[in-house]
Amino acid sequence: MLWSRLVEPGDRAACRFAHALGVEAAARAVMDGEDPRVEQRWRVRLAGADVRVDLRRLERVDGRVVIPGDDEWPAVLDDLDDRAPFCLWVRGPVDLGRSGRRTVAVVGARAASPYGEQVASGLGFGLADRGITVVSGAAYGIDAAAHRGALAAAGTTVAILACGVDRPYPRGNHRLIEQIAGSGNVVSESPPGCAPTRWRFVQRNRLIAALTGATVVVEAALRSGTSITAREAADLGREVGAVPGPVTSPSSAGCHELLRNGAVCITRTEEAVELVSGIGEGLAQRPPTPVAEHDGLSPDGVRVLDAVPLRRPAPAGTVARTAGLDPVQVASTLALLEIRGLVRADAAGWVRSRPAPARRA
Amino acid sequence: MLWSRLVEPGDRAACRFAHALGVEAAARAVMDGEDPRVEQRWRVRLAGADVRVDLRRLERVDGRVVIPGDDEWPAVLDDLDDRAPFCLWVRGPVDLGRSGRRTVAVVGARAASPYGEQVASGLGFGLADRGITVVSGAAYGIDAAAHRGALAAAGTTVAILACGVDRPYPRGNHRLIEQIAGSGNVVSESPPGCAPTRWRFVQRNRLIAALTGATVVVEAALRSGTSITAREAADLGREVGAVPGPVTSPSSAGCHELLRNGAVCITRTEEAVELVSGIGEGLAQRPPTPVAEHDGLSPDGVRVLDAVPLRRPAPAGTVARTAGLDPVQVASTLALLEIRGLVRADAAGWVRSRPAPARRA
Repeated sequence: MLWSRLVEPGDRAACRFAHALGVEAAARAVMDGEDPRVEQRWRVRLAGADVRVDLRRLERVDGRVVIPGDDEWPAVLDDLDDRAPFCLWVRGPVDLGRSGRRTVAVVGARAASPYGEQVASGLGFGLADRGITVVSGAAYGIDAAAHRGALAAAGTTVAILACGVDRPYPRGNHRLIEQIAGSGNVVSESPPGCAPTRWRFVQRNRLIAALTGATVVVEAALRSGTSITAREAADLGREVGAVPGPVTSPSSAGCHELLRNGAVCITRTEEAVELVSGIGEGLAQRPPTPVAEHDGLSPDGVRVLDAVPLRRPAPAGTVARTAGLDPVQVASTLALLEIRGLVRADAAGWVRSRPAPARRA
Repeated sequence: MLWSRLVEPGDRAACRFAHALGVEAAARAVMDGEDPRVEQRWRVRLAGADVRVDLRRLERVDGRVVIPGDDEWPAVLDDLDDRAPFCLWVRGPVDLGRSGRRTVAVVGARAASPYGEQVASGLGFGLADRGITVVSGAAYGIDAAAHRGALAAAGTTVAILACGVDRPYPRGNHRLIEQIAGSGNVVSESPPGCAPTRWRFVQRNRLIAALTGATVVVEAALRSGTSITAREAADLGREVGAVPGPVTSPSSAGCHELLRNGAVCITRTEEAVELVSGIGEGLAQRPPTPVAEHDGLSPDGVRVLDAVPLRRPAPAGTVARTAGLDPVQVASTLALLEIRGLVRADAAGWVRSRPAPARRA
């Protein structure tokens, strides 16, 4: 805990040092200041560091500390290697390590469009409804919409913050974050009381990417924190999805750039589920397609059908000539089309049946 | 010419037969009817076939016939192998074989949305404006918008029809097709007077794909003629692009499916140009990105900048503690930030400069 107070998230040298000595010995070494490997930047906060204060703050919000080796520690964080966190400050009733692979990050721009928020809340709802944990950053816009969708489905949602878990940021999402803490998890790598900084936002994004099986970007401007999350996810071997939008919308420009760089195009919940499903499981069904009169006909069948007049009957020979097909074959095809109710014959020849509204057989 | 009157486009057996004998001998063999390889379907139209009538009709619209071996014959059609056309009926002042690789098909749904038509006409304009020939099918919706855009740029556009070039279809685009014939080309594989049929639409689509270096789909329903054009293009080794749109719009569903299957995401003219450009030429510039205060700073620079208060000055030691960085390093970083005009020092310590609206240096 002291260590997470002294050292900023993602400090590789600190991480390697702590791994070499063990965290406790490393913290003592920083206090002694004699080990030559100790960096000055780890010592600057020694004066203000008081673990008891941190714990009291954590207690006030009914939080807990989760460290590597705990049952609840998410094993997937090992993928971060020398950028892995040393402790997580957690609020909420859910076992953080439980979700495993069936976890999707739904992230995106703060300055979201109504379209983006609609899609994000729809994805949040759909994923949570299918038992998948929805992870996001509790920011305005896309993040909040994704959390809200998951909450509406009474599913599990996890907010990863760039500040202390006792200090919800942004303020305007205070109530949302409390709701998430009530049924899901609110998580931070920085101790209680910490303010969000640009550095911590970036590191928070790496945590979102690492904690989830896939990251889906709903809306993002061209250069944005969201694209960092997506890059982290790709670097960590996680799936990256992007939701398309109008090319005229700057809010979708970042998503389109991701699509140009190999992200999977996500248009429906099922396609997001597919990202975190094993081979053969959870594959998105092809959406139903419109049904036409000539469905299931052979190419020649279509040609013959097209050659049968709509109103004025024509003899089979004329139909064959119009279709450019062998008359013998056309005769048998016409009989087949008659059985399907698409054409009918009278004394003057063949004519199209007025079809009932088409329905798949 | 007689051959193209007797045989439907894309008839592989007819194509192989004509290749084996030569077209003239093949046509004679169909008339004789003695060669056992002659299919009945090629003979059914003999009665009505009159090349002189076809030519008279062609003359009335000031058209011409282009056959393999002509200077104007587009060599790229050889890629169609045993589905290549034997003659093209052409109107318009442009040399059909001239465009070569710098030709893009812009195609899509007839039932297009205003968004789709806007994007299609923008692409048509942008491509034509860069000297690229815009090919489409003259249908309502996306096709017409693409042609119109190209015409507005005073560029070259080519309409490939599923009916005779003297018989513009659809009727409502009659004036548009005349305009195209006036400055570009109107092309058909079927002789004058022919009606469009479903079969001919499919074969027309193969011709659009074959004639162009890339096919860009602007809007398409899930199962549609447009997806056939895209599949043809991919099968022929042409590039396939798709324009994304709102996931809530059925008109974009076909495009999103193409994106999921490997089509290139196209959001701007430059990205469409890239599809028909050689390696290193015509590469789309990354669009300009918004400029932020911390652009070009090192990660530590950003951390120090974030640690400098906005209003109440703080001593360098406090800045170092907030940033979690070595005070010696922070001192030099602060000096650097001061030179960039981002922070300033007074007696009480360091504070952020109120920045002028950021502009790229």
